[in-house]
Amino acid sequence: MSKDKNNDKSARDTHYATLRRNVRDAKRERGEIPTPPMGRNPRQGKENFKPPQLQPEQVFLYGLHTVRAALDNPARKLIKLSVTRNALARLGIEEGQNIGVPVELVTPQDIDRFLGPDAIHQGVMLETRPLPVRRLDALKDSPLLLVLDQVTDPHNVGAIMRSAVAFDAGAVITTQRHSPTESGVLAKSASGALELIPYIQAGNLADTLEELHRLGFQSIGLDSEGPQPLEPTFSGDKIALVLGSEGKGLRQKTRETVTALARLDMPGAIKSLNVSNACAISLYAAKQHLSRQGK
Amino acid sequence: MSKDKNNDKSARDTHYATLRRNVRDAKRERGEIPTPPMGRNPRQGKENFKPPQLQPEQVFLYGLHTVRAALDNPARKLIKLSVTRNALARLGIEEGQNIGVPVELVTPQDIDRFLGPDAIHQGVMLETRPLPVRRLDALKDSPLLLVLDQVTDPHNVGAIMRSAVAFDAGAVITTQRHSPTESGVLAKSASGALELIPYIQAGNLADTLEELHRLGFQSIGLDSEGPQPLEPTFSGDKIALVLGSEGKGLRQKTRETVTALARLDMPGAIKSLNVSNACAISLYAAKQHLSRQGK
Repeated sequence: MSKDKNNDKSARDTHYATLRRNVRDAKRERGEIPTPPMGRNPRQGKENFKPPQLQPEQVFLYGLHTVRAALDNPARKLIKLSVTRNALARLGIEEGQNIGVPVELVTPQDIDRFLGPDAIHQGVMLETRPLPVRRLDALKDSPLLLVLDQVTDPHNVGAIMRSAVAFDAGAVITTQRHSPTESGVLAKSASGALELIPYIQAGNLADTLEELHRLGFQSIGLDSEGPQPLEPTFSGDKIALVLGSEGKGLRQKTRETVTALARLDMPGAIKSLNVSNACAISLYAAKQHLSRQGK
Repeated sequence: MSKDKNNDKSARDTHYATLRRNVRDAKRERGEIPTPPMGRNPRQGKENFKPPQLQPEQVFLYGLHTVRAALDNPARKLIKLSVTRNALARLGIEEGQNIGVPVELVTPQDIDRFLGPDAIHQGVMLETRPLPVRRLDALKDSPLLLVLDQVTDPHNVGAIMRSAVAFDAGAVITTQRHSPTESGVLAKSASGALELIPYIQAGNLADTLEELHRLGFQSIGLDSEGPQPLEPTFSGDKIALVLGSEGKGLRQKTRETVTALARLDMPGAIKSLNVSNACAISLYAAKQHLSRQGK
């Protein structure tokens, strides 16, 4: 990406490291290699190490809509915008205009080389810091939260974030392990939603659910074997919906901790939905319940 | 895939042609190249040519769940099963067992080379004919249909088919142009649903909607600008839900032809859902309406 490629070996090394990480992440999404265990986090060896968050130090966002949303987000720390002349125009930015972040004009191929062949970048890539970590008690005024128990696929989690924003949920809470970190793939699938809703990675999901209960939330775990359908399970005016991964569902400990388990009735020959579809339906149903409560 | 590769040039050529087609299809999904116009269909030049269906002559299905569902579908014409010893065991088939289709033992790499690097084949690939074309009037006894107006992404359409089966819809009807044909990617995303629900490609969607009206269906077009929410729009006991692509929504002609337009209310900052999520919610709401009608 750097224009003086031959003089800038360390920048290139970083780029190649990122490229390799992208390839690895893509394989991980396809289930070809497992998610790395916590011990692999290189920052864990450092002194004064804070509770591990598995947050990346930089995030490379791409795609016009995703980058536009990030540029518009005051909480987002920007490092560099790499963009084609054409994409710059489509973002509504003049050449030479000061947008508060260095702008580098590049070719589409430059970005291809950096992000790999599968990223639909539309000629724009934004290097940023990850969004600041958010705390649970900041969510106490929100009537609707979404909790994901080890949903690993960043495409699914991204689509879920988009639905969560559409239905005005207060946050998407995931497990720290076996959940995607903030990434370009997640951001692209979220279609701008990553900038609009806190994405909180919880170290211990059972503790987090208990904290939500103390904050007044009813937590409802979606489970195909749930004792009753979702609608009659709703009570009160603060709902946290809890969904597990498609293959494994909710973990035993999660199942034991939630206020109630409920099912989505499916009369057909297939009895499970894609997790992002299950989230969309649950959010829709919860929002209908809450609007009847005047929320 | 063939074991005597050097002696079997024509089979290899077919394999390479398929591989190229897969690469092209992948690019098309990513929006890098447009869907081919009708005129490109090579069968159009033949004599006695039936109304063009853009159906492929062979379909390569892969993945354990998808292949298992295809093997269990009596309507599915099978050509050849290419499978690793391990996957054969996972399919519950003995070596040498007669399953009504030739079985070839291969390595995972053989299938990789054939399908390209992005297909999660789990060691199994099934060569088949596409499913037989179904007629609209066969659907008259079904209370719920799903109609897609130029939804192009086979991942989305596959996920939609899965939801359609889960909510016991009678068919997924798409446009002949700008919709995916039956393919491995579609089948894999449908997670077995392709074998369980008719996938009908209509030449003229407006005519098809009129035919559905004659068969007693109320057709409801989902539109963010719809005059009222979905639930109060339902009437009668036969519903056809009509959804457009995410970017473009319903075409003008479709909008004019449906019985009613309706919206899904989204109170949040994002006012549109992923199309497969919008389908899931609409199907869920329609099924709730129909169950109140005793359907």
